Amino acid sequence: MNFKLIGRIIAYILLVEAALLLPGMLISLYKQEMLAFTGFVYTLGIIFGISLFLLLITRNAKMGRFYAREGLLTTGLTWIVMSAIGCLPFYFSGAIPKYIDCMFEMVSGFTTTGSSILTSVEDMPMGLLFWRSFSHWVGGMGVLVFLMAIVSLGGKNQGFTLHILRAESPGPVVGKMVPRMKQTAMILYQIYLGLTVLDFLFLLAGGMPVFDAACTAFGTAGTGGFGVKNDSLAGYSPYLQNVTTVFMLLFSVNFSIYYLILLKKFTDVFRDEEFRLFWCMVFASAGLLIWNVRPLYDTMEETVRHCFFTVGTVMSTTGFATTDFDLWPSFAKGLLLFLMVGGACAGSTGGGMKQVRFLLLWKSLRRNIHKSLHPREVRAIMVNGRAMDEGIMDNTNAYLIAYVIIVIFSFLAISLDGFSVETNLSAVLATFNNIGPGLSAVGPTCNFSAYSDFSKFVMIMDMLAGRLEIFPILILFSKSTWKRAR
Amino acid sequence: MNFKLIGRIIAYILLVEAALLLPGMLISLYKQEMLAFTGFVYTLGIIFGISLFLLLITRNAKMGRFYAREGLLTTGLTWIVMSAIGCLPFYFSGAIPKYIDCMFEMVSGFTTTGSSILTSVEDMPMGLLFWRSFSHWVGGMGVLVFLMAIVSLGGKNQGFTLHILRAESPGPVVGKMVPRMKQTAMILYQIYLGLTVLDFLFLLAGGMPVFDAACTAFGTAGTGGFGVKNDSLAGYSPYLQNVTTVFMLLFSVNFSIYYLILLKKFTDVFRDEEFRLFWCMVFASAGLLIWNVRPLYDTMEETVRHCFFTVGTVMSTTGFATTDFDLWPSFAKGLLLFLMVGGACAGSTGGGMKQVRFLLLWKSLRRNIHKSLHPREVRAIMVNGRAMDEGIMDNTNAYLIAYVIIVIFSFLAISLDGFSVETNLSAVLATFNNIGPGLSAVGPTCNFSAYSDFSKFVMIMDMLAGRLEIFPILILFSKSTWKRAR
Repeated sequence: MNFKLIGRIIAYILLVEAALLLPGMLISLYKQEMLAFTGFVYTLGIIFGISLFLLLITRNAKMGRFYAREGLLTTGLTWIVMSAIGCLPFYFSGAIPKYIDCMFEMVSGFTTTGSSILTSVEDMPMGLLFWRSFSHWVGGMGVLVFLMAIVSLGGKNQGFTLHILRAESPGPVVGKMVPRMKQTAMILYQIYLGLTVLDFLFLLAGGMPVFDAACTAFGTAGTGGFGVKNDSLAGYSPYLQNVTTVFMLLFSVNFSIYYLILLKKFTDVFRDEEFRLFWCMVFASAGLLIWNVRPLYDTMEETVRHCFFTVGTVMSTTGFATTDFDLWPSFAKGLLLFLMVGGACAGSTGGGMKQVRFLLLWKSLRRNIHKSLHPREVRAIMVNGRAMDEGIMDNTNAYLIAYVIIVIFSFLAISLDGFSVETNLSAVLATFNNIGPGLSAVGPTCNFSAYSDFSKFVMIMDMLAGRLEIFPILILFSKSTWKRAR
Repeated sequence: MNFKLIGRIIAYILLVEAALLLPGMLISLYKQEMLAFTGFVYTLGIIFGISLFLLLITRNAKMGRFYAREGLLTTGLTWIVMSAIGCLPFYFSGAIPKYIDCMFEMVSGFTTTGSSILTSVEDMPMGLLFWRSFSHWVGGMGVLVFLMAIVSLGGKNQGFTLHILRAESPGPVVGKMVPRMKQTAMILYQIYLGLTVLDFLFLLAGGMPVFDAACTAFGTAGTGGFGVKNDSLAGYSPYLQNVTTVFMLLFSVNFSIYYLILLKKFTDVFRDEEFRLFWCMVFASAGLLIWNVRPLYDTMEETVRHCFFTVGTVMSTTGFATTDFDLWPSFAKGLLLFLMVGGACAGSTGGGMKQVRFLLLWKSLRRNIHKSLHPREVRAIMVNGRAMDEGIMDNTNAYLIAYVIIVIFSFLAISLDGFSVETNLSAVLATFNNIGPGLSAVGPTCNFSAYSDFSKFVMIMDMLAGRLEIFPILILFSKSTWKRAR
């Protein structure tokens, strides 16, 4: 394992993080929130100290070997270090007294989960609120990918960029849109930025204050879900809610679809199986919900708006709320739990298992049944008219196994705190799939503060494992990772 | 598809069922339960009518082709027909007024689930109670395997017996203990009968009435769980409870282990990985439960007894109860939900996913992680020192996918009735894994009668899919199954 190189990458990432902390710090200064401002200053001091130290001891790092395992480990470690340090402004400012709570909030931010331990966000200093929402935007696309896009760390080493991109980007297949990985990353960031600005402008047009609009746009783009109001989006106008519904869904779509649209390849867009599955799921689920919760609302407009918003918030794994869906009937709640598992499309900023994995698993099941009936036929699994590599199928199966194991053990671990089965199950699904609110005691009007420190630690790992798709976190627990030489 | 041959097999099976109904009928006659007796008589009449008709129209059935698909379809259809007709005594006697409830009770019996829609079993005629418990014993080992053991339907066609045995027996691998399948089936039945008699004698020795002891032994041997008392086993002495704990666990072990013991191959027994995993799980779970529920009971003896009994009843998927584990703390309940999924060993009468599948999935996950780090190494998955066939791995993956899909959709379907998430989730897990009682509104002191007919139908399919390990039931919904020619 090339530890020196990994250390060097972490040092660079911390310097990037320092830059990302600046807007929040300036807002604190402008609003004269002195506690928050000093919190930011201390944090920057610590970052520079650590970066300098890391850069010194990794002076002679060699590019050399950089394989899948290095890519996974770098990603896992970077995310943990970034969160452990990025949460310090909350701690130093005294806004969140306990460090584990700060860490929970920060991991929830970077992983675009949106689960919170805060009982009242409106009491927070604005600089910290901005940093909290901004972290969604940063985490949505991934920081390492960002680093790849702006600097030439790996030199001409394509494998370097590819392994990082694979480890940090969601979905079973990471496609190159253009031959060079760096350029691909650049295009992704441009689409991301463009859509975010569009969302921001639409919100401003609806009369939302600039600060709220920026934070809401960050939360929507990253499919995070941290809000700046205690009632999330319930207090905003129907127009603003509908704009958010649309953008949550837009950010759940594989970004390569937008690249195809830019290239005017519309047939390829409509032929994309995941894209079609996603929209079928959206409309089918919203339809079922409308039918199921219709009696709870006064007008049809209200019912339709809340149902589409809730489908959008759960499938995109954002976690905003316009209505307390914990009060919905059992069927609606069951459906939401199911949608939590599914999540968004691969290659988007959304979380969950990803729709394409469902597609692959379903096709793999059908192939296996076919095979058990006709043992001599050999069939490849086709997606979008192309045969899938068996390595991807193996990986998807492994993902499902790891997914089930993590859900079971996290559920057991947090059950020790004594909450109900519904609370615990939805808490695990909401954090692991990076959604945010769950049901019952962690429903949209509640928060995660009542859980013990141990449970919070478990859910921190779940959020990270969910965002990084399990393996970069799993590898941290493997003995062979930490051996000096192979 | 060789429909004629399948029809002929069903006719034979119905005649076997007629014979199996006799003991219950005689008990009804002896106890002068005239309604129940007439119920049995009508049922026998119907069986003879249908069998005669089937035998007539399938006179010219040819042995010919009999492949895996025929094996699966035969098994699926046989179990449905047996249940649909076997439940008629409940219906004709008026003991259970609604047909869907009768069917639920019968499927629950044959699949050794033990979920009941009865609010008071003690009000039932004894003849019917006997048939109800006896159906566990019949279903535990499988009726088709029984048919294979006693008659030579397939002639010298080994494939015929093998495909039936594969479809009806639990577990990913069906081993031949001796070269001839028919002989293997015979040995299995002898072990089954021997252990059941032993259990019966131990219960008698503890002072249990003969009728109760027979029914309890049937319920234990088949890992079913229908009792003859409203409080299940709570009213019996600690000795009787402990005997049942031991036998529930014994019937959860792969029966080939007993064959190895009979052959005095003890090293092979202790080297068996599933056997070791099973006992580790038993003691670890019981330990955790004892630690978690200790404050609820007066003495340590009571705590230990109830915990081991509950672990036994859930892991063996029997479903007897000595204590209302629905009152246990969240962690204990979460652990029980997990144990429900795991279930017993392959090749036993117990249900669930089977321990060996956990073992295979875990090893497959580890192999995939290893592969993603060292792409050029090729490794086989080893169990008990032998490399597993990749076909079995594919099948196990398909099983997990189908398992997850069925749990999700059943959970959604029965959520329509409006019960809590805990009730619905545990109801699906309890029926699909053939356990019996769940938690909350379907806990050990409650029953399934409050669910709608639609939900009962869903759970009937779940019980069958669980017992027959999904594929024989799944194939019924495939269009290609019903095509006349290939």
